[in-house]
Amino acid sequence: MIMSRIEAPRDEDTAATGDLVGRLLDGLPAEAVLTDPDVTASYANDMASFCPAGAPAVVVLPRTVEEVQHVMRTATALRVPVVPQGARTGLSGAANASDGCIVLSLTKMDRILEINPVDRVAVVEPGVVNATLSRAVGEHGLYYPPDPSSWEMCTIGGNIGTASGGLCCVKYGVTAEYVLGLDVVLADGRLMTTGRRTAKGVAGYDLTRLFVGSEGSLGIVVRAVLALRPKPPEQLVLAAEFSSAAAACDAVCRIMEGGHVPSLLELMDRTTVKAVNDLAHMGLPETTEALLLAAFDTTDPAADLAAVGALCEAAGATQVVPADDAAESELLLQARRLSLTALEAVKGTTMIDDVCVPRSRLGDMLEGIERIAEKYRLTIGVCAHAGDGNTHPTVCFDASDPDESRRARESFDEIMGLGLELGGTITGEHGVGVLKKEWLAREIGPVGLEMQRAVKQVFDPLGILNPGKLF
Amino acid sequence: MIMSRIEAPRDEDTAATGDLVGRLLDGLPAEAVLTDPDVTASYANDMASFCPAGAPAVVVLPRTVEEVQHVMRTATALRVPVVPQGARTGLSGAANASDGCIVLSLTKMDRILEINPVDRVAVVEPGVVNATLSRAVGEHGLYYPPDPSSWEMCTIGGNIGTASGGLCCVKYGVTAEYVLGLDVVLADGRLMTTGRRTAKGVAGYDLTRLFVGSEGSLGIVVRAVLALRPKPPEQLVLAAEFSSAAAACDAVCRIMEGGHVPSLLELMDRTTVKAVNDLAHMGLPETTEALLLAAFDTTDPAADLAAVGALCEAAGATQVVPADDAAESELLLQARRLSLTALEAVKGTTMIDDVCVPRSRLGDMLEGIERIAEKYRLTIGVCAHAGDGNTHPTVCFDASDPDESRRARESFDEIMGLGLELGGTITGEHGVGVLKKEWLAREIGPVGLEMQRAVKQVFDPLGILNPGKLF
Repeated sequence: MIMSRIEAPRDEDTAATGDLVGRLLDGLPAEAVLTDPDVTASYANDMASFCPAGAPAVVVLPRTVEEVQHVMRTATALRVPVVPQGARTGLSGAANASDGCIVLSLTKMDRILEINPVDRVAVVEPGVVNATLSRAVGEHGLYYPPDPSSWEMCTIGGNIGTASGGLCCVKYGVTAEYVLGLDVVLADGRLMTTGRRTAKGVAGYDLTRLFVGSEGSLGIVVRAVLALRPKPPEQLVLAAEFSSAAAACDAVCRIMEGGHVPSLLELMDRTTVKAVNDLAHMGLPETTEALLLAAFDTTDPAADLAAVGALCEAAGATQVVPADDAAESELLLQARRLSLTALEAVKGTTMIDDVCVPRSRLGDMLEGIERIAEKYRLTIGVCAHAGDGNTHPTVCFDASDPDESRRARESFDEIMGLGLELGGTITGEHGVGVLKKEWLAREIGPVGLEMQRAVKQVFDPLGILNPGKLF
Repeated sequence: MIMSRIEAPRDEDTAATGDLVGRLLDGLPAEAVLTDPDVTASYANDMASFCPAGAPAVVVLPRTVEEVQHVMRTATALRVPVVPQGARTGLSGAANASDGCIVLSLTKMDRILEINPVDRVAVVEPGVVNATLSRAVGEHGLYYPPDPSSWEMCTIGGNIGTASGGLCCVKYGVTAEYVLGLDVVLADGRLMTTGRRTAKGVAGYDLTRLFVGSEGSLGIVVRAVLALRPKPPEQLVLAAEFSSAAAACDAVCRIMEGGHVPSLLELMDRTTVKAVNDLAHMGLPETTEALLLAAFDTTDPAADLAAVGALCEAAGATQVVPADDAAESELLLQARRLSLTALEAVKGTTMIDDVCVPRSRLGDMLEGIERIAEKYRLTIGVCAHAGDGNTHPTVCFDASDPDESRRARESFDEIMGLGLELGGTITGEHGVGVLKKEWLAREIGPVGLEMQRAVKQVFDPLGILNPGKLF
């Protein structure tokens, strides 16, 4: 729908592309405008599978707000679609290029402008890498919680675009919770400031949160005020083995119902445990049907782990092993962090789903995924941010086998359908992008979809901002 | 602007009002439609000073979603403005009636539909009183943090409309942090569901947060999914006296910079302390220039209070008194809770401001307020959610004295101007309503204002939803 409102991409028209590049160079230094097709092609994709991508007409790498404004003014004048990008670690195709577009990479706007320990805020440009910020604030005794798996590479701008989560969310919430205010370049190049740098503020509609998770479809974030927390004590991890996934999910429910606040509560199913062992020979217990990792970053984590260990045993854990120290904790977490890489190695290709259900339905979700894996004769490994009910069912398949690929795609969709049936969402933290846009309507319904499209129209009347994503 | 798009109110036209009431009665029981002018007049105002209010044509008290839909369909058909109301405890005039409007009181939709300790959510209708919900979830070992001063009266729907804060915010954040999903009746009567009941979710734009704090100007919230937390231990309070407001603000900065996470960090200035003593003879130290209250609801609150007490002494506290138990803590909090009532008693009338600044600028804010009080020859008492930088400068004046009233109004505005100069916001938690709508543009700028108006237009093309508020 949105695509139809844009003039057809004119990348076949050299004169038009020349005009576009010429105009961009009026306000950007030459080194910030990339046109070599081999180079621009390398900006076509994020990390999602099964998501089509087009060939960009040009890639721009602005370093200032004014340069971004120039890019957007040019795009508006010429009606050229703009695809904003961070580190392209996304998993939904939201950063994939469309044919003839301007890829607007924010990676060169990577300055941390301020870290304020009294106000507990950081002010950053969008290209700052998550881990860079996390380490920088750590030096001030502060903590920026959001920690997507890609935290060593992904940018804050990308995190804001997709409202990223991570392992920390069960205690600390997602990126959205940490964005206080934004500077945004609108589609027509005007600069808008949203939100605040104060702890509280209710002046007008919350446009800040509207932009978080909007996948670059409403405007270009060029500056963000982020909330920080005091650095918590180092977390201590416990591992619990279960003879069934249902028992592990029961333990999760008991832990949360018991009022515990773990800093991490992760689940790896049998398939994932085996894949990690195969890849990294970590000596995880292959007889386990589900491995639960719980952590606490409290003042007395050993006491918290003891309480949670007892709940795991009550739920039928066959073994409960608390880590003695930070080093042992780190080893256990490494296994979890390797999960997706390990599952990728199983069959060469994976589709990572991101269905989040109410945590009371986690057991039903895992049981349903096992049924779907059987039905489609596929290997589907599940690792989950279990405390959030956020599962990452990962379909392992051979992309060179068309039938297996078809089954993979079908099982992926069926998993989303199951998530909705259980009162969940098609995406807990990875976003809609290209991958799930057909599913968005099913989740939010026709009225919601109509209002969302109307909001899009307000901020992007020409439909040039990341067209073909989300809707 | 919005008003001009509505047909002139026709309350002088008995036939038109008769038509309106008749149509409302087609879908509402007789007892849910109030037309006696004496009765409807009692619904004209919330608790704000200096905010004009009109005479409602009719007050409706629906009990079901379908009834709310009928009201909105009727309002759309007849182009009649609708003013949604909760308990009318607001302080910005956002719930004030306009002439000829339908007052849509949600107070009869007051059912708690679900409390789920595993998912840590509650599902409620908008008319549930904050304290009722807090107590109900408490019985399940859960905690709903938002605690505006009016918590014994105010409704969850009203809290959502104004994105209310309270004493808890320094640790637990504001209402917005606890709203996961909404059912909303749109201006034309259609029902829209936003958000989720899962811990995480990023499917589409965050319309939930757009509605939080929108003061009934985008739609009618008829159901909310709220996040809950485990009930923390009882908090323990410490009182610290300072010989200057600057020293107290310095203590606040040291506490927050030191990485402490108090569950409450409140400041009362000399004027407020004196007013509370005058009203309730609480024996607070009248020699103090500023009284700071800090609390912790941790597992070892005494240790936390000791650390914070030491920081207060380092900042120059003349006396530091930690409470020994919950009863002593409660006494100290009572003094804080009485502040506004006590300041009201000083001169008969008050204007309560709600300026929030970065907490590092709290000292500058208090100093500036003192300067403004002197300039306008007024008594301005300040109590503040100091940990948030959220001040409530309260102008005490005699409303029967036109000159003093004028000076009160001018000082009120000057305080907002000072807040903006210090990088703050004109409203930390009370909202814009009628009281501050002329100031909104100053805070968010012309581009932001234009986009906010355009968003309003999407949800309320006829301008019937709480017209004349916010913008």
